[in-house]
Parts: sequence; structure tokens; C-alpha cells
Amino acid sequence: MAAPAPAAAPAGKGILLKADPIAGAYRDEVKSMLAQASTKPKLVGILSTSSEPSKFYAEFTRRQCEELGVEFVLKKTGAALEAELGEGEGVEEAIIEANEDESVNGIMVYFPIFGPQQDHYLHQVVSPLKDVEGLHFKFHYNLYHNIRFLNPKSLLETVTAPSGQKTSTIDGEVPPPGMVKSIIPCTPLAIVKCLEYLGVYNRILPYGDRAYGKTITVINRGTKSEVVGRPLAALLSNDGARVFSVDIDSIQEVLAQSDVVVSAVPSASYKVKTEWLKDGCICLNVAADKNFEKDVRDKASIYVPAVGKVTILMLLRNLLRLQQYQRIQEESN
Amino acid sequence: MAAPAPAAAPAGKGILLKADPIAGAYRDEVKSMLAQASTKPKLVGILSTSSEPSKFYAEFTRRQCEELGVEFVLKKTGAALEAELGEGEGVEEAIIEANEDESVNGIMVYFPIFGPQQDHYLHQVVSPLKDVEGLHFKFHYNLYHNIRFLNPKSLLETVTAPSGQKTSTIDGEVPPPGMVKSIIPCTPLAIVKCLEYLGVYNRILPYGDRAYGKTITVINRGTKSEVVGRPLAALLSNDGARVFSVDIDSIQEVLAQSDVVVSAVPSASYKVKTEWLKDGCICLNVAADKNFEKDVRDKASIYVPAVGKVTILMLLRNLLRLQQYQRIQEESN
Repeated sequence: MAAPAPAAAPAGKGILLKADPIAGAYRDEVKSMLAQASTKPKLVGILSTSSEPSKFYAEFTRRQCEELGVEFVLKKTGAALEAELGEGEGVEEAIIEANEDESVNGIMVYFPIFGPQQDHYLHQVVSPLKDVEGLHFKFHYNLYHNIRFLNPKSLLETVTAPSGQKTSTIDGEVPPPGMVKSIIPCTPLAIVKCLEYLGVYNRILPYGDRAYGKTITVINRGTKSEVVGRPLAALLSNDGARVFSVDIDSIQEVLAQSDVVVSAVPSASYKVKTEWLKDGCICLNVAADKNFEKDVRDKASIYVPAVGKVTILMLLRNLLRLQQYQRIQEESN
Repeated sequence: MAAPAPAAAPAGKGILLKADPIAGAYRDEVKSMLAQASTKPKLVGILSTSSEPSKFYAEFTRRQCEELGVEFVLKKTGAALEAELGEGEGVEEAIIEANEDESVNGIMVYFPIFGPQQDHYLHQVVSPLKDVEGLHFKFHYNLYHNIRFLNPKSLLETVTAPSGQKTSTIDGEVPPPGMVKSIIPCTPLAIVKCLEYLGVYNRILPYGDRAYGKTITVINRGTKSEVVGRPLAALLSNDGARVFSVDIDSIQEVLAQSDVVVSAVPSASYKVKTEWLKDGCICLNVAADKNFEKDVRDKASIYVPAVGKVTILMLLRNLLRLQQYQRIQEESN
């Protein structure tokens, strides 16, 4: 896919940048990984609620998989299957079944289901060897400790890397012998990939420090999120950025200093005030509903309204990596 | 310790039952386990906030350990150490240090620290081999699946019991050969032990079904709790009870049917209305502040105002069990 020209901006307005050109590069990467894969990978999606955005995202996953040549099976349970069944009913059983099914390489569960606490429990039920979303504790632990590589055999151990045998955080993108890349939660990773594309990450700076000098605000809802907010803040600060991870009611002051504003508030009514933004900043909306006002581009130099198309490619890239890790795991048994 | 006489009840009032007599039986059990232990077990408490109830509970832990002959080391970090440091600062590092310290048999972290989501992350940082509170995902998974025994070697594996080699849930209290008891979260377990003492559990009924015929309501706060509410509901329903796990704003109807009411709402202002209770029911307060009105015994036949003294004994019993599991784990290496 040729690099597309940026969308034309009316005089005095910032650029509206849809995620397609950003997704393009990763689509090519996933295609070439697929061409090298020994077998066609199989992804199981588990849809257990009547939520329209989840249903939409499941269909979107199917289309992306079909287009790229990944086998996708959508398992419906609970309220997604029959209106009389409860929201989320049977979801844990469906995850366990997919964990045990050797033909399945990756599992994607459509959240939210029960609320943050019980959903967090479900994140741990998915085997780390099949966790394409990167939501398992092991991957969060690695992220929070800037541990970028792991021994694939350790995926089935609860032990966190102790200081004696700590996985090194070598400067560079190539894992040392016997090690593979850790899985990074796919939504935060997609956001970082967007920032790389937008030039917020400076490729002239050394790997691991490419966001140095940038101030980035991540807007969360009241209860700090372990799904997007905290992992994203960790990723960005691992890369050298100065990060504010803030509540919706305490943002005005930090916005005035922020080169980049990422908003992930799951609410249709919440809007970041355009007047609070720094002139020329970059804004990314991660929520299903738009968290920015219509006139955001009066201040923002670039506005990315949605990152879902990049997220799905990060997820498929994780799927292909996990397929390899599963092979290593099997061979070691 | 001789079985104490129940506290005298004024005419027409229910009994006020402090937890001491319930704790007594378990204190004897812990003492006899300690007498058989090869070495004095070592418990590390990690206090990282300026919270008064946490500080109080840490001192309470120390007194109980000293009285029974358990080595207790209190590690202070963050705001517990110096007023200028942040709440929870350094807690994760302190947990990792205690995980790696071979002289430590058990780790107890004083929660709440950051809020439910990040605290849940911290529960997974504690090694399951040292998790005396039973807050690790593995123990919740076993509880939710009514898996009562486990192979101690599996404690260091992320794999959840697959259906093919499912740990059996045999009727009986003795684990099969090679297996040990799973660790049960200590607060919910303490509540069950209180209910056993109070006769809510009927010893004439078969093991695993002794709460049959009882209707029990567990009152939670808005966001359902993975620390007390859901594990307790699972424990009770594994034992045959009919359980309502309800929000504070939808309790009136179920209270009228409930033989037992357990309240665990972390709020000084929240009170269960006495007029809503069924005549002769049993009430247990689990929150730090009293969730029942002063006149609760006008309706309740028995009222237990606090269970902390039982909880700490469950925790110490878990410590002694884990000390054994650690030995088995070491021998298998």
C-alpha cells in the first residue's frame, strides 16, 4: 500500500487523520508474517453480551481476519446468543474451552462484560500463550518493569522475573538468543504506533528513548484503568516521555503543557474542552464515543478520531507471535 | 480455651457475639500446627499507606504473631515510612523483594492502596507460594470452580486446571494423595468459620452441602468486590446455600427472606435498616465501620460486630500450610 497523502485541511484547521494509513504499514507486516506461518492461525472471538459496540467490533474482527487470511471463529454465549440468557453468562467456560483446544492459537474476549473487577479476573483466565490482547498479568508486569523480552517457556509459570535472573531490557529491537518479545496490550500499543507514525516518536533518538522531550496526557475515568490508562502511561514513559495520567476532573492545567492528548473515557457525554488544549498539539481519541469537541482542530495540528484499525493489526501481530511461542513451548515438552 | 458462655442478652434482644470464642478454636489449631512446624514461620507485612485502619491492623497482626510464636517483620514503605512519600510508593518493589527472600514464608499486604484495579494487579505480584491472604488469581479460580485441592507443584504454573486433569472436588475434608488444600481468601473464609460456629452450617448435612436450606445475603458496594463479595458468595453457594450478592441500593426485598446477612460496605455512613431484617436472622459486620444500626439486635437473634480476630487466624493457618507447600516445592526441584 502506497503512503497516502494526508487529508486536506481547510485553512487554519489541523489535519483530520483517519487510522487507515497508519494501519497500512502493519497490514503489510502481518501479511508477510502470515506468508511465513507454517499453518493458518486460528483466532477465537468470544462475544457474551448484547453490547452493540462489542457486536460491531466482533464483525470488524471477522472482516479483517477474512481479508488477511486468518481463520476466525466467533463463539457466542450468554446474552449474545439468546436474549433470555444473562450478560456474560458462559464466558468463563468458553475461555476455558478455547484454552484447552489445541487448534486455537489466539483468544479475544469482547469486554467490558461484568465491570472492571470481574473483567480483570477474566483476563487471567485466558492462557498467556493465547492472549492476543495482552491483558494477562504477566504482560502487564513485564510492561510496568520495562521487561521487553521473555523466554517463551516462562509463559506458563506464575513466577515474575526475579532480580537474579531478570530478563534484560537491552537497548535494541532484537531479542537475545532464546528470548522472544513480550506481548504488549494491543490498544496501548496501537496508540504508540500512531504516535510513531505522527512523528511524536523521534527515530533519530536511541531506541527506548524516542519520546524524550514530549509531554503526553492520558485522560482516564475516575477509577484508573488497568486496560488502557496505566499500561499506556508505562509504555510512553518507558520510551522517555513525560506522562500525565489524569482523571477527567483535573485536566485543565496539564493540557496547557501537553504536546499530545490521548483520551480514553468510555462516555458519550464527556468532551475535552478545545480551549484548554495547547496550540498545535496532537489529539487521539481512543474511546468508542468521541471525547473531543467538533472544533478540536481549531487548536490541534493533527486529530486522530479512532485507532481501532491499528489495534486489530497489533492483535493479529500478537496472534502470529503467539503461534510461534506455542510451537517453541510444544517442542520443549 | 474453654467454650465461653454466650454474652448475656437483655430481654427481647438478640445476642451480641464478639469473635473471641470463634477465634479460640482456630488459635488452638494454629498453635498445634506451629508445634509441628520444622522451623518458626516468618510473615512479612507490607504497609505502604498512611491509612489508620491499615496501621491498626498491622499492629494487630504483630501482636497475634508474637503471642503465637510466628516471626513477624513489618516492612514500611511510601507514605507509611515518610510523610513526603506517596501513598503506595515502593509497595511493588517490597513485594518482589519478599517473593525472592527465601527466609520469608508468607506475605501480607495492607490494602486498599491505589484502588480496586491497581490493587488487583498487586494481588498477582505476590507469589502464590507465599500468598497467605489467598488473593492470587489461582486461588480465586479454584474457589469459583469449587476446586478444593491442588498439587503444590502447580502453584508456580499459570495453567488453570483443564478439564482433562481437573483436580477432583471429592466429598470430604482430606486431600487425595499428592494433593493439598487450596488456599482460600482469608476474609471470606473467616466469615464461613463464623457461620459454622453459629450453627448456620449444619454438621449433620454432608460435607460440601452444609449450608443447604439457608438464604444468605452478602451486601457489597456498587462495584462488585473480588476481594470479599464474590469469593464469599462462591464459598457459600459451593456449600449449598442460596446466596444473594447485592448492591446497597437493591437490598430491601432480599433482606426479608434472608436467614443470614453479611455486610462488607467500606463506608461509615452506610447502615442496613433494622426494619428490613427478617425476625431472628443472624447479622455479621465485616466492614471496618459498623454497617448495622445500633438496634440491630431488636430483630437479629445473633449479631457479630467484627470478624478480624478470626481472619488473622485463617491467615496464620494459611501461612503454616504454605510453609509446608514450599517444602514440597523445594524437594521437587
